[in-house]
Order: sequence, then C-alpha cells, then structure tokens
Amino acid sequence: MSEQITVALDAMGGDYAPAETVKGAVLAVEEHSNIKVILVGQEDKIKQELSQYTYDLKKIEIVNATEVIDMGDVPTKAIREKKDSSLVVAMKMVREGKADAIVSAGSTGAILVGGQLVVGRIKGIKRPALAPFIPSKKGFSLLIDCGANVDARPEHLVQFAQMGTVYFENVMGKRNPTVGIVNIGTEEEKGNQLVKETYPLLKECKSINFIGSVEAREITTGNGADIIVCEAFVGNVILKFFEGVAKTFLSCIKEGLMSSLRTKIGALLIKPAIKGLLNTFDVSSQGGAPLLGLNGLVVKAHGNSKSSEIKTAIAQCIAFQENSINEKLTKMIQN
Amino acid sequence: MSEQITVALDAMGGDYAPAETVKGAVLAVEEHSNIKVILVGQEDKIKQELSQYTYDLKKIEIVNATEVIDMGDVPTKAIREKKDSSLVVAMKMVREGKADAIVSAGSTGAILVGGQLVVGRIKGIKRPALAPFIPSKKGFSLLIDCGANVDARPEHLVQFAQMGTVYFENVMGKRNPTVGIVNIGTEEEKGNQLVKETYPLLKECKSINFIGSVEAREITTGNGADIIVCEAFVGNVILKFFEGVAKTFLSCIKEGLMSSLRTKIGALLIKPAIKGLLNTFDVSSQGGAPLLGLNGLVVKAHGNSKSSEIKTAIAQCIAFQENSINEKLTKMIQN
Repeated sequence: MSEQITVALDAMGGDYAPAETVKGAVLAVEEHSNIKVILVGQEDKIKQELSQYTYDLKKIEIVNATEVIDMGDVPTKAIREKKDSSLVVAMKMVREGKADAIVSAGSTGAILVGGQLVVGRIKGIKRPALAPFIPSKKGFSLLIDCGANVDARPEHLVQFAQMGTVYFENVMGKRNPTVGIVNIGTEEEKGNQLVKETYPLLKECKSINFIGSVEAREITTGNGADIIVCEAFVGNVILKFFEGVAKTFLSCIKEGLMSSLRTKIGALLIKPAIKGLLNTFDVSSQGGAPLLGLNGLVVKAHGNSKSSEIKTAIAQCIAFQENSINEKLTKMIQN
Repeated sequence: MSEQITVALDAMGGDYAPAETVKGAVLAVEEHSNIKVILVGQEDKIKQELSQYTYDLKKIEIVNATEVIDMGDVPTKAIREKKDSSLVVAMKMVREGKADAIVSAGSTGAILVGGQLVVGRIKGIKRPALAPFIPSKKGFSLLIDCGANVDARPEHLVQFAQMGTVYFENVMGKRNPTVGIVNIGTEEEKGNQLVKETYPLLKECKSINFIGSVEAREITTGNGADIIVCEAFVGNVILKFFEGVAKTFLSCIKEGLMSSLRTKIGALLIKPAIKGLLNTFDVSSQGGAPLLGLNGLVVKAHGNSKSSEIKTAIAQCIAFQENSINEKLTKMIQN
C-alpha cells in the first residue's frame, strides 16, 4: 500500500468551479484510497456542492478562503493583493507542508506567479516550467515549457531539458528518454537566435539524451522526441493550436456523421472503433500539467476541466509523489 | 477572356521532381487556357517526362538549366554559386520579365533567399513574407509570415499585416478583412517582447482592420481573424504542426475504420460525407503560398507536392496577376 498524499484543490479555479472541482475531489477520493483532498475556497459554496455526495468524511476537508482570483485579474497583482484567495491559501499550504500538492484549474498566469512567489523555486532552478504531456501516434511527449514566462534564455531551456528528463524518466518509466528542440528545420544551423544559441548547450549537456531539432510536423506523429523543449510562447502556441485543431476536426467529423440517415448508420458502426482514438487527441482530457522546478508540486488543470479531468489531475499527484520527483530534481541541480 | 500569363516552373524542385512537376504543368495548361508554362531544368529529363503526354505545344516550353539545388544545400551559398540551377534560372526569367511568376516546390530557404537576391524586393518593403492560406471551419485565414526569415522586428510585422490585407482583400474578395496577431492570451498586456512592441503599432496602423490578439486555439475554429500575423518561427511551427496533426488524425481514423468488418461497412457509409471535410484540412493540398513583397510573383509549393498540387500552385498565379497584387502592394507602400 502506498503512502497517503494530501492534495490542496483550488475549489474556486476554473470555468466550472466550484461544482465540477468539488465533484472531481469526490471522484478522486472514491477511486484512490491513498488520497486526501483539501478543498480550498468559499466554505458555504463548497459545503453546498458537497452536500449532494456521500464520501469518506476523513478524505475530504474544507479550508475557507474568501477571495477568488478571476481570469481577468493581472496575475502579479492578484497574487500580492488577494491574500485570502483560494489559490494563494492553497499554495501556502504546500509551502508550509500542510499539503503535498496543489491542483488548480484557474488562471495560468496566476498559478505561475503564485508558484514562484508563494511556493518558491527549488534552489538553483532559474525558472519553473509548465510541462504537459501531449499525445502522439506512439504515446506521449512532454512539451516543456508551455507557461506564460516567455522570452527565455538558452540556459533556461537547458534546465527545462534536464527537468523534463527526470520527470519523464520517472513518470513514464523510460530510461534515458530522448530530448529534442522545436525548430523550423532539422539541420544544426537552422533556427532563430535562441535555438541557435541553445543547440550547442544541449549537445554538450551530459545528463540528457539530446537528439537534435524536432520539426513541429513530427510532434504528433511520434517521430519527434520524448521530451520536446521550447520557449514558452512557442509551447503555448503549440498546445493551444493542438486544442483548436482537435476541436475543429471533431466537430467537422461529427457534423459529417450526422448529415444523413446513411451516415448516421455508418456512425453507429464505427463509433466504438474510433472513439478511443479521438479521445486520445483531446488535449483537455489529459488532466493537468505540472509546473516543474518548485518547492512542492503545483499542477495546472485545463481551465474548462470537468470533474473527470479534475479527478485525473488530482490522481497525477500520486505518481509525482511516489517517484520523489522533487527530491530528484533537487539532486539533479546540485550535480 | 483574361490575359495570358506565363509561369516559370522549377521543374527540378520538390520530392517528386521532375515527374510530378512536369505532369502538373501539363494538367495546368490543359485546365487553364490562359496559362503558359516554362519548364526550367535539365532538358533531357524534362523531355523524357513530357514525352508521355499530349498537350498544346504552344503552351509548354523548356528552358535548360544544368544544376539542381538540393534540400541539403545551404540556401545563400546555393543561390550565389549554382547560377545555372533550375531555381535561379527560373527566378531570373521573372526578374527579366520573361515570366510573370515562378513556382517551385524546392527548398523553402533557397526560394526565400533567391526571391530576395534574384527577383528582388519591392522598394520600401523591408522583408518579403511567406503567406499560405490555412483552413478553418469557416473558410481560410492567411498566416503571415511562415518563411525562414526569423527574428523579425515589430516594423516587419506591421508590413506583413499591410501586405496580407491587400492580398486577402483582392484574392478572397472580402473588403476590410480583419487582422489579428498570434498571442498567448487575448489581453493587450499579454505576449512576448515582440508582440508587446508590435501590438500598439498595429493598433495605430490606419490601413488595416486590426482586431487584437488571436489565441492559437482560435485559428482553425474560424473565430480568429482573416489575416493572422506572426513572426516566421512561430508561423512555421504552426503550419508544420497543423500538417503533422492532420496527418496523425487521418491515419488514426483510417486505422480505426479498417479494424473490423463492422467498421469497414460503416466506413463505406460515411465516406462521401466526411471525405470533403478531411481533404479541407490537408494543408499540403492547398497548392502554394506566395512570397509577398517581391518584384514579381514567387510561389512556394509544398515539398511533397504531386502533380495536382503543382497544378493548383500554377493556377493560383492567375488570380494574383489578374488582381494586380504587386501593383497594389507597391502603391500601398508608397502611401
């Protein structure tokens, strides 16, 4: 039996909070006996939502926080001024060791700023990085960095590659995973200034298995790399574009399938076979992405997460904890 | 009846050259009575390919060029040293007014360098930009710049927006098309340094209909903008990623549909309805992208173009010519 893990959930963060966050917490403790969730947010609203469910009372706790950080709030200002917001209070619990991890589906910018200011960076880490898994035909790649901390320098990208390697190796159980850098060609001399300066540093870096440039067209075919390094602006564009393309594709196919009686019958026949495939490419269903490099686990769930994605994001914390990712990152940076 | 247009085709450029380029030329003159194609490249090889077809002899001409620029060649070196390459000879024909346009499926880098060095820029244009149409649920958006001329400055991006507006307005027949800039959020203060500096300049620019930031997830949903401005590294990543995702999706769906007798029957029923939709999202089928801002029309076709894409790329030159795009770009920049 694995050890108990306590996750602070920003109950007020996300498009469907607190209804779906609370439901996600209930599902998580139901499915994973070693998880305890602390719902952080406006107590009355949380209690009202919780009243619909039966659950193990020892597994869910409420911590009151009166304020809410909105998507429109300027991140730095919100973190500094809304001291009693669900996000800040939940992050403080991680800093103070009252929780092992925090999950939030709120504003990415606020999570990033809060992660740095409230939870704090691991000593030696220059910048934390948001690292979601993105699906490919052959499995998953880790895209690092997809955050809001743009205009990175070459040394940041090298640390992203190192952190990504430790994370991927442990969570995906693959020794010596490959690292590539997003580029507009595969030749070494290609790229913008940042990529050209970063390339030789990655090549020299002994703690990673660098295989060179990865063209964007290879990311989903699975011929890219396990860990795909890029600057946050580019990573964010890739991630959101993926989301948009997947959405457009699925809705076009759906419309096509519903266009006549003939196609409706066809749709019934093919549904079981392609449903799984299509779900794989729904980026928002992947749960959350960790913000690597902080003194505690911070997981960013998709803004439009429903209860099942919240549940997945909470469950992800188990593997992170069990594999002692943060201890390994700390050790990595000291070497 | 519209005027005659002469297109110089780099017969040796592309993954399937010269077989598919020559075939594409034959298809183009067959379909469009006002097109004449000059096949530029190794005469013996071109003649051999041509011998398979019957076509109007007045509509296809061969100009010999002994050298070939390979994908592995360094662009600047190739353009300067391979003076008798199919690409350079074809571009010279445009510069000297012997052809109205050049189409090539060869190395993007070489086309870009050749465009600037051989064809030359329109006076006042700081950088030419590669501007493909990319499909969305509601039609097409122009993504500018997707070239290999990275690390653009804010004033370049403003010109891209202006050129894109003239091109889109004329070719798509839409007055006052909307312009957006690729960003990682929709708020004005979001973005990297380049976007933050460019945003106010676009806002002030009177000759465009700037509507603000476009998040990457809106590009294919059609809720973005008609003209989507970005720096070439980002544009190139978006374009190639689109290609990769589309390819992965289609192959997953195909595999799903072929997995059992049941799904095979379903596939037959739905095929007519979804085939068109799926083709729309095949970026490589869109023909070519113009390199805007040069003293003549340069069209870059996809490297893996088959004859039908070459045909489309050649045919695209008609609309460009008939709408006097270059005269309008010249006029725009003088104002």
